[in-house]
Amino acid sequence: MAGNSFGKLFRLTTFGESHGQAIGGVIDGCPAGLKLDLEKIQNELNRRRPGQSAIVTQRKEPDTVEFLSGVFEEQTTGTPIGFVIKNANQKSKDYSHIKDTYRPSHADYTYTEKYGVRDYRGGGRSSARETACRVVAGALAKQVLSGIEITAYTASVGEIELQKSYKELDFKVIETNPVRCPDAATAEKMESYIKEIRAEGDTVGGTVQCVIKNVPKGLGEPVFDKLHAELGKAMLSINAVKGFEYGSGFEGTKMKGSQHNDLFNNDGSTKTNLSGGIQGGISNGMDIYFNVAFKPVATIMQNQETINAQGESVEMQGKGRHDPCVVPRAVPIVEAMAALVIVDYLLQNKTSKL
Amino acid sequence: MAGNSFGKLFRLTTFGESHGQAIGGVIDGCPAGLKLDLEKIQNELNRRRPGQSAIVTQRKEPDTVEFLSGVFEEQTTGTPIGFVIKNANQKSKDYSHIKDTYRPSHADYTYTEKYGVRDYRGGGRSSARETACRVVAGALAKQVLSGIEITAYTASVGEIELQKSYKELDFKVIETNPVRCPDAATAEKMESYIKEIRAEGDTVGGTVQCVIKNVPKGLGEPVFDKLHAELGKAMLSINAVKGFEYGSGFEGTKMKGSQHNDLFNNDGSTKTNLSGGIQGGISNGMDIYFNVAFKPVATIMQNQETINAQGESVEMQGKGRHDPCVVPRAVPIVEAMAALVIVDYLLQNKTSKL
Amino acid sequence: MAGNSFGKLFRLTTFGESHGQAIGGVIDGCPAGLKLDLEKIQNELNRRRPGQSAIVTQRKEPDTVEFLSGVFEEQTTGTPIGFVIKNANQKSKDYSHIKDTYRPSHADYTYTEKYGVRDYRGGGRSSARETACRVVAGALAKQVLSGIEITAYTASVGEIELQKSYKELDFKVIETNPVRCPDAATAEKMESYIKEIRAEGDTVGGTVQCVIKNVPKGLGEPVFDKLHAELGKAMLSINAVKGFEYGSGFEGTKMKGSQHNDLFNNDGSTKTNLSGGIQGGISNGMDIYFNVAFKPVATIMQNQETINAQGESVEMQGKGRHDPCVVPRAVPIVEAMAALVIVDYLLQNKTSKL
Amino acid sequence: MAGNSFGKLFRLTTFGESHGQAIGGVIDGCPAGLKLDLEKIQNELNRRRPGQSAIVTQRKEPDTVEFLSGVFEEQTTGTPIGFVIKNANQKSKDYSHIKDTYRPSHADYTYTEKYGVRDYRGGGRSSARETACRVVAGALAKQVLSGIEITAYTASVGEIELQKSYKELDFKVIETNPVRCPDAATAEKMESYIKEIRAEGDTVGGTVQCVIKNVPKGLGEPVFDKLHAELGKAMLSINAVKGFEYGSGFEGTKMKGSQHNDLFNNDGSTKTNLSGGIQGGISNGMDIYFNVAFKPVATIMQNQETINAQGESVEMQGKGRHDPCVVPRAVPIVEAMAALVIVDYLLQNKTSKL
Repeated sequence: MAGNSFGKLFRLTTFGESHGQAIGGVIDGCPAGLKLDLEKIQNELNRRRPGQSAIVTQRKEPDTVEFLSGVFEEQTTGTPIGFVIKNANQKSKDYSHIKDTYRPSHADYTYTEKYGVRDYRGGGRSSARETACRVVAGALAKQVLSGIEITAYTASVGEIELQKSYKELDFKVIETNPVRCPDAATAEKMESYIKEIRAEGDTVGGTVQCVIKNVPKGLGEPVFDKLHAELGKAMLSINAVKGFEYGSGFEGTKMKGSQHNDLFNNDGSTKTNLSGGIQGGISNGMDIYFNVAFKPVATIMQNQETINAQGESVEMQGKGRHDPCVVPRAVPIVEAMAALVIVDYLLQNKTSKL
Repeated sequence: MAGNSFGKLFRLTTFGESHGQAIGGVIDGCPAGLKLDLEKIQNELNRRRPGQSAIVTQRKEPDTVEFLSGVFEEQTTGTPIGFVIKNANQKSKDYSHIKDTYRPSHADYTYTEKYGVRDYRGGGRSSARETACRVVAGALAKQVLSGIEITAYTASVGEIELQKSYKELDFKVIETNPVRCPDAATAEKMESYIKEIRAEGDTVGGTVQCVIKNVPKGLGEPVFDKLHAELGKAMLSINAVKGFEYGSGFEGTKMKGSQHNDLFNNDGSTKTNLSGGIQGGISNGMDIYFNVAFKPVATIMQNQETINAQGESVEMQGKGRHDPCVVPRAVPIVEAMAALVIVDYLLQNKTSKL
Repeated sequence: MAGNSFGKLFRLTTFGESHGQAIGGVIDGCPAGLKLDLEKIQNELNRRRPGQSAIVTQRKEPDTVEFLSGVFEEQTTGTPIGFVIKNANQKSKDYSHIKDTYRPSHADYTYTEKYGVRDYRGGGRSSARETACRVVAGALAKQVLSGIEITAYTASVGEIELQKSYKELDFKVIETNPVRCPDAATAEKMESYIKEIRAEGDTVGGTVQCVIKNVPKGLGEPVFDKLHAELGKAMLSINAVKGFEYGSGFEGTKMKGSQHNDLFNNDGSTKTNLSGGIQGGISNGMDIYFNVAFKPVATIMQNQETINAQGESVEMQGKGRHDPCVVPRAVPIVEAMAALVIVDYLLQNKTSKL
Repeated sequence: MAGNSFGKLFRLTTFGESHGQAIGGVIDGCPAGLKLDLEKIQNELNRRRPGQSAIVTQRKEPDTVEFLSGVFEEQTTGTPIGFVIKNANQKSKDYSHIKDTYRPSHADYTYTEKYGVRDYRGGGRSSARETACRVVAGALAKQVLSGIEITAYTASVGEIELQKSYKELDFKVIETNPVRCPDAATAEKMESYIKEIRAEGDTVGGTVQCVIKNVPKGLGEPVFDKLHAELGKAMLSINAVKGFEYGSGFEGTKMKGSQHNDLFNNDGSTKTNLSGGIQGGISNGMDIYFNVAFKPVATIMQNQETINAQGESVEMQGKGRHDPCVVPRAVPIVEAMAALVIVDYLLQNKTSKL
């Protein structure tokens, strides 16, 4: 059934496969009267684009977004914003070698089982190409959120981890390196490691951390639509994500309550922030921060044994152009999904009191 | 706005505060013709009940569920199932000491900021008492899911962790100890540790692991309503949860693709299962497993500094009856939420093909 | 699937059958800080109650609503408001004569076909008893809508019609007669006619007109969730309703554009109001008015031929206590549903502009 | 907030203004494995197209639909189907004369009040041009509904009404005349009348009747999502609609129960069908039929007094190319919306029993 919409009041619906004619979407519920900076939206898209650096896939996709509605004289009108991004690189023949074959740890098999048919061109709908639409909507959402700052960055690649807390980081460093790590020395190590991995024809996972500053108090709709529950769903819906934690996260489970409790300052802010800016599912005005776990990309440049649609063992060749590590390009996607969640809850919160 | 419903086709809506007259809910969309075993439902509720062992809160709540509709001659009729659980223990006076005070790392402050008013009796709506309603609905959902087995258990308490993979465990051990850990020796250590923590007037966190067996292939609705995204939201909506990971989770981010890929057997099953039973957001027929992180309970039996509604520093006394570790009682709640998700996606999947 | 909720931001979910233990519901999304007048809510319920006059069913139901949550110190807290109404009159034996028989133009047959099982006690879930829950929620919604006046009344019974436009009526007359018609002379004719019909053991249909004054401009969410579309759905969801029209309605189809257009006054109000207060699905600040068509009640006190579950012809005896005309008791239900729609759109409209 | 989606399991989301670059939409939840006949879809669109006959607007819009996703090798894949229709006739200068002026009985005023900004090109989003997207989705839905026949036609134009019940009509006549009336003699009268009206520079309203045959029993989701309630909402969401009635409708309110009740045949069908194929909100297998009231188009070719954004009286010139009567072109739109509703409920009904 319909599962391609995200958000309640500010809702993104996306469509499109990696090798169809175009991908695109509809942004519905955007408040009227927003002066849109279209260049900023394209810039966000460029941060996700293939071919932007030596450590990402070299596929060629200009990824130019065209807005078809909902914007008049550069201002949102309150009506739905339709947009498309043409697929430049739809060489379906590239995929003839997998037409009848299920790639390990890909969605080929599950899509076939679910739908009975399979669009074997690239990942079809399961390709991360779809996330370009999320970046468009998220970039627009960011413009609604004036004053609220959403910053994501690479926190780990394989075993290489940032050793600092988010408060010690200089976010201006993020875009100075292709890994999008806010610590230059760590970034260098990560970059070298990704190149090494690529040379092996292999891939590696990593984590993205995201920090949201200046969030108003009161966002979140208990008991099921808690702010962090929806943030978690948003992140888990991104391709290759295996986990989500916020505030103290999994580490916090090892602590005692007497250590973990965030004591108040007299102005209602807290001395510590192990809660991650959310208590009882509602923002408390402190920074929100969370981590997102990305598995290693399933497509590797090594031959692998697999099966075909008839259940016969076949060898699959490792070829094509793919990311050795998805994390650097996932950074703007994480930001986009966070922006979509925050906008929706800002709007929802307008109805909490008389 | 409305945030107290969960599920699309099979939908639970809950109501009730910890110290109101009753809590309860409506289960809407349950298929007709299900022979209900009401005793089994009450049994699940008993697994969540306060006072069930020496290591949980000694509050007295019989937690008896009454069904008011939707069941006729012990069979579901397809109409909504209303139910209530009376609050036996609604001594509001117990809470007069916090009437005007915000408990650290509780939702007192955020509810007040959001709604402008506060029900200061216990946690009000933010109390985990609400989860009793989830257990009722989840227990009913389990009966719809005949053949699918959902099993949760305590995987860690503080630093004490289960050292075995879920395949090596004997699930029959779970209910033999008050911690609900499937390894007897580890259970004993956990129990001692919780008692120690309680003696200190402190609390501790932990993790629950959940395994779902015999899930049909095809469950999940990409791209936003991926199966694991909704499972994640379901778990994150439980009180005190700080994180969710499935399959290889956060550990998987450190692996290479060549290690992480699950190679196929000829029947479509996989030799390994780092994917955790889900590929591209759709179940592949393998076991689904995931971990849920619970923070230490915020209410401790130690005095803490805090502020009152006027922003003045006050000392809060540690008193009352609370869980030193929420994890043992969270086990049936995790199962319940998992059951709600799986039922909904089973129903959704009925529409995927012509 | 789940179909027992109404509303997006302010959402009512109902449960309960005519002859179960209780009916009830959950009102979710009610803004916090509303001082509730519980007596007014009970008064609305009394307007719908059986036995209130000689021309309605003489069934005995005190219809006392109990609120279980969401209200603290007589004020809404922003959390869901659960409520129940006990069924006093659940004498299931009354219905043994129809256990195996399908009443003509009732839902007995369709429920059995859809669900495979049937709760044969009264109408079960299809009974108009469920609308008591709508009246509770609507009465509460009315209190959120301070300043907006929603007034419904009987506009026709059978062939007897009000001959005045709504502007010529004195709404204070409505509650002075058991028919709830704002014209005393017409009311008398209607009352006599209903008594005559009842004496024949028959029933008759009629229409309810509803007027909503002081609606703010801007309510409505095109293109699918137009204000009148949702009002229409709300009304059509009431038992026995066969039609809905607003503004000029079906009569307007016979007019020319030059007659039908509402010309503007300089303040944006219109000289005429054939539009019925809504243009393009959005309120324009003028009075909203609409008509709702109710069919004659299907249960008559005459014997009828029908079939049983085996498809055999049987004679069904006309007995029991039923309304000869549903319209007088439908008046508060129409108001309630209108209130639910207006509240929801008021809340939605808070998000239309930056 | 988001109001541009229709349907729960099979969901259409539309975007686009009358004079933007393109209109389009996303069809989400279409079951996989449907062999699409794209020509049939374009044919339905042609039935709605401007310029198709002498009695409709002579605006030039080829209205060619392009599918961008969700279809592979002419078969649906279960993924969302994105489509666009370019606006050929986007001469915005045509509308400079109304830039600052509110057209009587149009949505210009209400959109401005709601959103604070106005896209003055044509009707913008409030234009009936948007319904082309509904026709695309409806035409596709019809192909899912093999065996179920949905037929709409013009039942009245102004005072000229079809004098036959739907059972006496020959549906093959419908497309033989530009009015789409299934009775040739009446069609001729209607056509002459529309031409006369057009010559006066005026417009006229009318009604569309729709008949749905071979509907399976069991469609409908009480109590709020009754089949006819959603059909009503669907129809009321179409531009210019003022009313909806099904089965006996408003006429039925004048009848007695003893006349109105549909007695059963032994096979569960009914001897009469005043119920209109739906009892208790659930289809009973008989024909579903309903009427939809369309007001006269607000744009007339006569000068009218109106106001501008400053509240000053101005004279508005009657010019441009518009439909003298919207009903002939509304016929395929009514069918489309009916198809969307029926498909969604067919899918929903798959979950009603175990």
